[in-house]
This record gives sequence, structure tokens and C-alpha cells, in this order.
Amino acid sequence: MDRPIHFRTATMDDVSQIVKMLANDPLGSQREHYADPLPPSYDEAFQAIDSDPNNELIVGCLGQEVIGVAQITFTPYLTHQGSWRATIEGVRTSSDHRGNGIGSLLIKWAIERAKERKCQIVQLTTDKTREDALRFYTRLGFQPTHEGLKLNI
Amino acid sequence: MDRPIHFRTATMDDVSQIVKMLANDPLGSQREHYADPLPPSYDEAFQAIDSDPNNELIVGCLGQEVIGVAQITFTPYLTHQGSWRATIEGVRTSSDHRGNGIGSLLIKWAIERAKERKCQIVQLTTDKTREDALRFYTRLGFQPTHEGLKLNI
Repeated sequence: MDRPIHFRTATMDDVSQIVKMLANDPLGSQREHYADPLPPSYDEAFQAIDSDPNNELIVGCLGQEVIGVAQITFTPYLTHQGSWRATIEGVRTSSDHRGNGIGSLLIKWAIERAKERKCQIVQLTTDKTREDALRFYTRLGFQPTHEGLKLNI
Repeated sequence: MDRPIHFRTATMDDVSQIVKMLANDPLGSQREHYADPLPPSYDEAFQAIDSDPNNELIVGCLGQEVIGVAQITFTPYLTHQGSWRATIEGVRTSSDHRGNGIGSLLIKWAIERAKERKCQIVQLTTDKTREDALRFYTRLGFQPTHEGLKLNI
């Protein structure tokens, strides 16, 4: 890439670009609804994230273009002698820029942010059908020590 | 059980009993430090949890005795068209009462609480060495669709 990627907190103006990325994916296409205008539930969720000091929605940008996104949740736990953890979720990069190492820069940025927030563990789950994602995260040092279980309610 | 179990939000006075449960476990014994007085990091973590409207530390009690614990984190996400999820973590029951269905009541209570908070998904991870826990959660309807990855930083 000629220009450096930079990371910042997402704003309401980014939500449409973010949802476009979330929907442009085999799993995301089944559950997201990218339209103009977007369903209001997206803006409501953005406002809830943005107003919570323990949630940060991060975008990676190339100039004005949003090309990557991840949400980091910082959570205090009693376990591990009372430690904070960072949970990374909703990671996606633009299909136009995939394979350029953007995902790796994004996760490394999130890990540094977790250190700034005094977290001792960074954690995430990835759908078992995403075999590439599992390889990607293990290359970055994550250990697949846990089963990730979900219940739709 | 003769007496009904009841659930409530934990208070600072419960922290010692909770840490005792967390430490009384093959994995917990390696990472917790149950002592009198407790390391101050536990009280600090409790205060951070207690002051966060999106975190709830729940205890199950038999009379005055604390016999189960779980932490629920409510998180807004852009994914799934802007939905809230409940993440359950730090689940433990007292070894004196294991096998009495307390864990099941605790998780069912947490699921009901997640519904009250308008969550669409309840999620959790469990260490792959805890084979009993995996069976327990799948019996309750959870699907092990994800890999759970951790990175110590």
C-alpha cells in the first residue's frame, strides 16, 4: 500500500460503510441488512456503543475510505485475581483490500489498545466455518483453548 | 434441596465467598489467590463491575450462603442488525452443592435476565479441558459453533 492505514474511533458517519463491510461476507450476508437508509437499529446500536466507555468501535482508514472495522469491549472480571479483559468482535476488512495485511494491523492495534487499558487477556471467538480466520488469529499468537457457545434467545 | 435457591446481584460482602469458589477448581486454583485479607485487586475489580450498568455479578444463595456465581456482560453490537448480546463468564458453584442443579438454575436465570435486557444472543466460552462443562451447556441448548481464542498480553 502506498498510503499508511490509520485507526480511529468510528463516528456515526462511518456506520453505513461499516455495515456494508459486515454484510459483504458469507455469514454477514445472511444476517445483516445493508440498505439506504439503513434500518434504524444500526444507528441505535452505534449510539449505545459510542456512549459506553467500555466499548470502542475502531475503524481502519486509507485516506477517507473506511477499509476495516473491529469492536473492542473492555470488561472487568473477578477471575484471574480481578483483571480486565479485551474482547474483540465484529472484525471485518473491505473485500477490495483483503490480503493487504489490514486485518493484521487492525488486530495488532487492538492489542496495543488493550494494553493501554490494562487488560491482561485479549479474547475473541470465530465461527468454526471460518478456517482462514482461525489460521489468521493463531498466527497472531491467539490460542484456541476454548469452545465458543452461542444460544439464540 | 429443601430450601429454594434465590439469585441476586452480588455485594462487596460476597467477594470473599465468590473468590473461594473461583479458587476451588482445577483451573481456578492455579490463577486465583484466596486469602484473608484478599488481594485488593479483587475489591477493585468488584467495584468496576458494580459501577458498570452493562455488567452484573450474580450470586445464587441458599439462605445466607453463597453457592453459585456468574458474571453477565451486556454488549451492544452493530452486527446482527444492531443487537445486544449477553456474555456469561466466571460461572462457578460451590463444591459442597455440585450436582444439585444449581448451575443449571443459574444459567437459566442468566438467560431470563438477558431476555429482560433485550439481548438476542447469549454467549460464553468454556475451556476445552472442561468436558463436563461443554456437555452441561449443550444440554441447556448452547451450540458450540465457535472457536474461543485467548491471548495473554
